[in-house]
Amino acid sequence: MGGVPVTREACNAMDCADPLAHARERFILPDGVVYLDGNSLGALPATVPRRLADVVAREWGSDLIRSWNTNGWISLPARVGAQIAGLIGAAADEVIVADSTSVNLFKLAAAAVRAQTPRCVVLSERGNFPTDLYVLQGLENLLAGALTLRLVERDRIARNLSNDVALLVLTHAHYKTGEIHDMQALTRAAHAHGALVLWDLSHSAGAMELFLDRDDVDLAVGCGYKYLNGGPGAPAFLYVASRHHENLRQPLSGWMGHTAPFAFVDGYAPASGIAQYLCGTPAVLSMAALAEAVATFDGVAMADVRAKSMRLGDLFLSLVEERCAGCGFEIACPREAERRGSQISLRHAHGYEIVQALIARGVIGDFRAPDVLRFGFPPLYTRYVDAWDAVDCLANVMSDGSWRDARFGTRAAVT
Amino acid sequence: MGGVPVTREACNAMDCADPLAHARERFILPDGVVYLDGNSLGALPATVPRRLADVVAREWGSDLIRSWNTNGWISLPARVGAQIAGLIGAAADEVIVADSTSVNLFKLAAAAVRAQTPRCVVLSERGNFPTDLYVLQGLENLLAGALTLRLVERDRIARNLSNDVALLVLTHAHYKTGEIHDMQALTRAAHAHGALVLWDLSHSAGAMELFLDRDDVDLAVGCGYKYLNGGPGAPAFLYVASRHHENLRQPLSGWMGHTAPFAFVDGYAPASGIAQYLCGTPAVLSMAALAEAVATFDGVAMADVRAKSMRLGDLFLSLVEERCAGCGFEIACPREAERRGSQISLRHAHGYEIVQALIARGVIGDFRAPDVLRFGFPPLYTRYVDAWDAVDCLANVMSDGSWRDARFGTRAAVT
Repeated sequence: MGGVPVTREACNAMDCADPLAHARERFILPDGVVYLDGNSLGALPATVPRRLADVVAREWGSDLIRSWNTNGWISLPARVGAQIAGLIGAAADEVIVADSTSVNLFKLAAAAVRAQTPRCVVLSERGNFPTDLYVLQGLENLLAGALTLRLVERDRIARNLSNDVALLVLTHAHYKTGEIHDMQALTRAAHAHGALVLWDLSHSAGAMELFLDRDDVDLAVGCGYKYLNGGPGAPAFLYVASRHHENLRQPLSGWMGHTAPFAFVDGYAPASGIAQYLCGTPAVLSMAALAEAVATFDGVAMADVRAKSMRLGDLFLSLVEERCAGCGFEIACPREAERRGSQISLRHAHGYEIVQALIARGVIGDFRAPDVLRFGFPPLYTRYVDAWDAVDCLANVMSDGSWRDARFGTRAAVT
Repeated sequence: MGGVPVTREACNAMDCADPLAHARERFILPDGVVYLDGNSLGALPATVPRRLADVVAREWGSDLIRSWNTNGWISLPARVGAQIAGLIGAAADEVIVADSTSVNLFKLAAAAVRAQTPRCVVLSERGNFPTDLYVLQGLENLLAGALTLRLVERDRIARNLSNDVALLVLTHAHYKTGEIHDMQALTRAAHAHGALVLWDLSHSAGAMELFLDRDDVDLAVGCGYKYLNGGPGAPAFLYVASRHHENLRQPLSGWMGHTAPFAFVDGYAPASGIAQYLCGTPAVLSMAALAEAVATFDGVAMADVRAKSMRLGDLFLSLVEERCAGCGFEIACPREAERRGSQISLRHAHGYEIVQALIARGVIGDFRAPDVLRFGFPPLYTRYVDAWDAVDCLANVMSDGSWRDARFGTRAAVT
């Protein structure tokens, strides 16, 4: 961006030249809102309302139970999994959609730890996405002695790999700072010590290129409702490299993961392949929405997604430095786009109040305690001019002091 | 019903006198279909299409992330749980909606077994609903030695209670035969041996009166998409008696079960009360549909539901005996309505083909291997005349031999 101020017109011109500009039409976004929280809840894909209405009225209401066959409900988890596989560098039969990210993490961590006996350490990062740590703690308590969770600082992960580590669990793009780990290097380092690796892709899938197979990743989980835009509480996905399909066994062995779910026999026998990782009956309504959402990536090159994401972040950061200098902000994400996910994080002592003031003006980011303001840039529907408008609003809120308004003083449960 | 043939007109008259007749208007049912499979997938509540369209377009599409607060998404699991509590004889704060029945069973069984150390036997019934057995087997394998699953015949459960039993896991209404267990007596017997009891209410909730608190039940799970009509793969519910809220801890400790989910601290601390049993982010779309579905019970007395259910089953059985005598059917459910859930099960060597022939004629029941035909009677939307029409169709299919049609010879994946 250089030293010359970037004008709104220049941003408009960038949007005109954007090879992904057309993708914005695949979403419905409210007027008067600059939505920079797609890293928490993705926007509504334009085809979802009609599709969901059809699933409800025709598939459920008219076809009723027959829809499991006639409308393909039974194969939805595998079909949507195959769609997602294409976005993360996996084979179609290595990914399936099921349950929540937390539940899927439990399945995979438990399966990996059991396969790695007598190794019993699960290594992860202090400050990792909390639900990942909570689930690992739950598994540690349940296995009472057969698993030890070891948390280390982010920069000490590689040196803490050792021959007692069964599994390394990391989140690829950090939820708070947006910083990304080197997936290939850390996976290789873990393998050199005989450890398996489980990557949480919740803040990566749909936001950047991923190469799970190329990088020799063992296991992964990810969220359906952030950059994949699957809607609030959308089902999550999980990945198991095909080389592990035979040797791992997950403990949440519900009927949908049975090799013959409709035989209704008493003894569990896991399905071969990725279907083993299903548990109960799939949430069809939510999964149908997710299928539409993942289809918004049709014909989109993930390399273009990543390129735009980096450029949006750089633009936003430059504008903040230019227009909000001296306002007390500190950059909380990597300055180099290559090391960053599709979000910009800033620190400010009054971060909560500032985010509330922005929201009141239609610029929606979010806040993470104690002092982080997050702004997400889903490349399919975020324009360069959105970045400009957001920083313009931020600069105004800071310069006129309106963030001090008493309305923004009490913290709501979720933002 | 006596020895006098029941006419269709008599059934019409019963519908006219039915105090629950008005409830049928709360559902959308396709023309030309007699739907007797609500025990597998409940019918579509009439308010769901509009409500879901609003959740999608306004709450998700326009209000976006703000909906967690402004549209109350964050409290949905507890609110829908409280709705369901009213149908099963529980206090509002003893029930929550989350995940699937299978996942919830895992949570509760694991929590109970841990609390009951050093007892390590989980007692259940051979032929129990398969996913319940599969989940218990998964937990048994995971805990490698700390849990032994003991399966006994249905009539030997009480005598197999002993001082090493940590937990008794039973399904209240059997999925295949419809036979119900005496919840109060078995719970009391288990308690006399120091065991806890976990009831699966999947085929009971919404179909009959239940008295979880009165019967001193410890734990329960249940399905959202059968008699509760929440839609395909609807979230499930779970019940934990308030006396156990402090002493049990479930292992699927995702962030929504944390005492302060938005503090984003590294250490898990369970929420007090029923909220501990949440795991990942709730599936808002599916849960919104379930909320509408449970509201179809508003103003309905569960005693009336049970009375109509028993009467529908008796009518259907009498008609089968009258009109299909000599056709090779055997009654596979209890003859006495008091011992039966809201379904009628028949056995026939050609059960699969017969069910397919019925479905082709618009009478939808289902088949469970090897030879069981199931017909469910959800009292809110099933009419007495539906029972009559179904048996009329069954009698015709048997008498004209049309079930032998080659079209019905190959088994589909799910029916």
